[in-house]
Amino acid sequence: MKIVILGGVAAGAKAAAKARRMLSDAEINLYTDDTHISYSACGLPYYIEGNFEDYRMLLVRSPEEFEAVNVHIHLRHRAVKIIPCCKQVLIQDLDNNKVELVDYDKLIIATGARPTIPPIKNINLKNIFTVRKIEDGIAINEKALKSKNAVILGGGYIGIEMLEALVKQNLHVTLFEYSDYIMRHFDPDMSNLIYEQLMSTSDGRFEIYTNELVTEFSGDNNGVNTVKTGSGKVLDVDMVIVAAGATPNVEIAREAGIEIGITGAIKVNDRMQTNFEDIYACGDCVEENLLISNTKIWMPLGSNANKEGRTAGINACGGDDRFHGVLGSAVTRCLSLTMSLTGLTVENAEKIGYEAVFVKVTKNDKVGYMPDVNNITLKLVADKKTGLLLGCQAVGTGDADKRVNTITSALLAKLTVEDFFKNDITYAPPYSPTIDPLLNAAQILLGQLEK
Amino acid sequence: MKIVILGGVAAGAKAAAKARRMLSDAEINLYTDDTHISYSACGLPYYIEGNFEDYRMLLVRSPEEFEAVNVHIHLRHRAVKIIPCCKQVLIQDLDNNKVELVDYDKLIIATGARPTIPPIKNINLKNIFTVRKIEDGIAINEKALKSKNAVILGGGYIGIEMLEALVKQNLHVTLFEYSDYIMRHFDPDMSNLIYEQLMSTSDGRFEIYTNELVTEFSGDNNGVNTVKTGSGKVLDVDMVIVAAGATPNVEIAREAGIEIGITGAIKVNDRMQTNFEDIYACGDCVEENLLISNTKIWMPLGSNANKEGRTAGINACGGDDRFHGVLGSAVTRCLSLTMSLTGLTVENAEKIGYEAVFVKVTKNDKVGYMPDVNNITLKLVADKKTGLLLGCQAVGTGDADKRVNTITSALLAKLTVEDFFKNDITYAPPYSPTIDPLLNAAQILLGQLEK
Repeated sequence: MKIVILGGVAAGAKAAAKARRMLSDAEINLYTDDTHISYSACGLPYYIEGNFEDYRMLLVRSPEEFEAVNVHIHLRHRAVKIIPCCKQVLIQDLDNNKVELVDYDKLIIATGARPTIPPIKNINLKNIFTVRKIEDGIAINEKALKSKNAVILGGGYIGIEMLEALVKQNLHVTLFEYSDYIMRHFDPDMSNLIYEQLMSTSDGRFEIYTNELVTEFSGDNNGVNTVKTGSGKVLDVDMVIVAAGATPNVEIAREAGIEIGITGAIKVNDRMQTNFEDIYACGDCVEENLLISNTKIWMPLGSNANKEGRTAGINACGGDDRFHGVLGSAVTRCLSLTMSLTGLTVENAEKIGYEAVFVKVTKNDKVGYMPDVNNITLKLVADKKTGLLLGCQAVGTGDADKRVNTITSALLAKLTVEDFFKNDITYAPPYSPTIDPLLNAAQILLGQLEK
Repeated sequence: MKIVILGGVAAGAKAAAKARRMLSDAEINLYTDDTHISYSACGLPYYIEGNFEDYRMLLVRSPEEFEAVNVHIHLRHRAVKIIPCCKQVLIQDLDNNKVELVDYDKLIIATGARPTIPPIKNINLKNIFTVRKIEDGIAINEKALKSKNAVILGGGYIGIEMLEALVKQNLHVTLFEYSDYIMRHFDPDMSNLIYEQLMSTSDGRFEIYTNELVTEFSGDNNGVNTVKTGSGKVLDVDMVIVAAGATPNVEIAREAGIEIGITGAIKVNDRMQTNFEDIYACGDCVEENLLISNTKIWMPLGSNANKEGRTAGINACGGDDRFHGVLGSAVTRCLSLTMSLTGLTVENAEKIGYEAVFVKVTKNDKVGYMPDVNNITLKLVADKKTGLLLGCQAVGTGDADKRVNTITSALLAKLTVEDFFKNDITYAPPYSPTIDPLLNAAQILLGQLEK
């Protein structure tokens, strides 16, 4: 039994480990164009921030650990072509450009995603970075220690996390978002709240501009030194972070006839199988089923990649494991602010055809007399007709994430607002007001449902 | 319409406020033997700890605020007798001992609970305190500022919270628990863990003894100065906290023929009605329905009191509101340790007749490379036959409470372990490991269920 895995960050590494445990005598080969495998890419901003000195903290398992259990790791080997009819993959060694045809019985595609590079003049200048690989983190870290001013392109998760990281490294940061809103996974009103809450703590350390396109970089052999924007801003910079989204690496899959889904990522069933019986896919290169609406969504997150890699690894070895999908849950932090969400926003709920109602409450996260009380703003979304809970967004310096996770189970179970209002959330002054903000929100939302 | 409310801390005050909003012309009279109404008794340890200086931070609404909306508050007036057949209550003015008969159309009993006083020699000495009323808090606070050594009787919620409070006020604290375990709402193994984790941070600031009965206090006119225990310990002390449990105040209800439940607290239906149609009860004097098992439990918590007071207030005014019950959720903190639980422990599950299986995992609460990573130990309990989730206990210096609240919704929705394993919990390095400990636990627990 020959198992070939393409890609080895989270999903590929997990699939390899799982396959090894499933079949002790299978021949397992993992090919990656990267120089590292099995690492926490989501941890790069926290490494750059200076939370720990050694980037090796980001590594989960070393190639040696895999080799020790007879999983062969081929670093700097790129998959060039998948030939499903012959069950072969054409692999190129990036160090000597030699190619070889590799046979497989089962193929697992975990080619991940890559940063989207916007077509901006001189974007290839030195000291313009993306945040994806270990090398990116090391290079950004080195440069940040010698820099004073940074520009970030993009106000999504990575842009916002890099803002925290560079501000903590005492750089002055200017973030440009080309659209109307940063953190566009949230509804516009919540994005505005995020913007306002972040700016209220800026104290001159950073600026955030929305509706602002970076049009040109300039610089010299030492690298980028100037950023120009559509509105005519010209900024002196030492470094630039491009965090303008990501693109799933699906090209070789598409060329091989593997079906690509509506989101642009690889389409798989709940066994992580593609339209070819012997080809599985997992991680940032595949799309997910959104459990609430049974629609497709692309959620390239480490947590999903791990679960999908596990399922792909088990099934490639003849097991029967299922990954049912996601709720769209996500969380991040920027300085003192937590932003967390699950399920559908009002915007997304309406796109899918729900008549969405919502309530937004701003409350203390614990009893008001506690010294570390902070506020959170909760937005709870439901279907007006059935009362079905559809989603929750939470933003604040207080414990927003706990509330969102209390809702994840409710979404999974398809609870209505009326059901959820019966919930018995833990209470003590250091953890919650007497009546938790979630129950305040649910109570108000009840009044907006169809009787 | 005459509404009479007996008691005014959480449930009584909430019922009064709700009744006022329901019926603007009802005559509402609230009688309490206390000198304060509408306060956060659960906040007393945090006041004593020194988190805020003014005890009035604990007051939610003043008598004047109630009078302003024509709710008449009678402080230091004790209900002596309820006469259901005449719809009257005999009330005694504690300042002059005069009694009067008060008519009601609807009566709401919110007489709360009182500290249990164990029969220990000289327990009435000065500087031996219970923690229930505002006056208790003020007196303890004053004495603590002048004290060096304190003894606490009882290792339940209040005992543990007072340990934190007095240690933070730089007293040396010795806590005696008469039974085998502190925090007996948890399973014994989790209680042991709580004990071990607390003691590992003691650094000589406090001791905890289980299986140790305090047998005698001695002292003089200045108050208690010595504590003797069953094993022969003799301690010099400046003050003593008695936190040996609580007893629901149900005597006048029982005498009036109001049904008392199996737990010793007043029995009510989901409208908070007693066996007398026009008599409602709510708060610490009533028992609750445990939603998982439809058995009865007594959970005297501020959160429950608030919900019950609301329901009683609405229904006494002719509305129709339901309080369905509780999941047994609770949380507290002692110094850096969080202890949180919901649903059934293994012990309680077995008592009710479930064949309980469980898993216990100790994990990081966030990704290991984050500087503020801490551990949590989760114990997840399920029914072996059906896979129904029954409960969750979480203890640790990490974010234990978030995990327990994620389970509250799952219990409410009667999810199985298999259902729950599909949950999409938010992930980012500052908030969770890639795979949340709850999902690790659920995965292991799956293997213990009947196929």
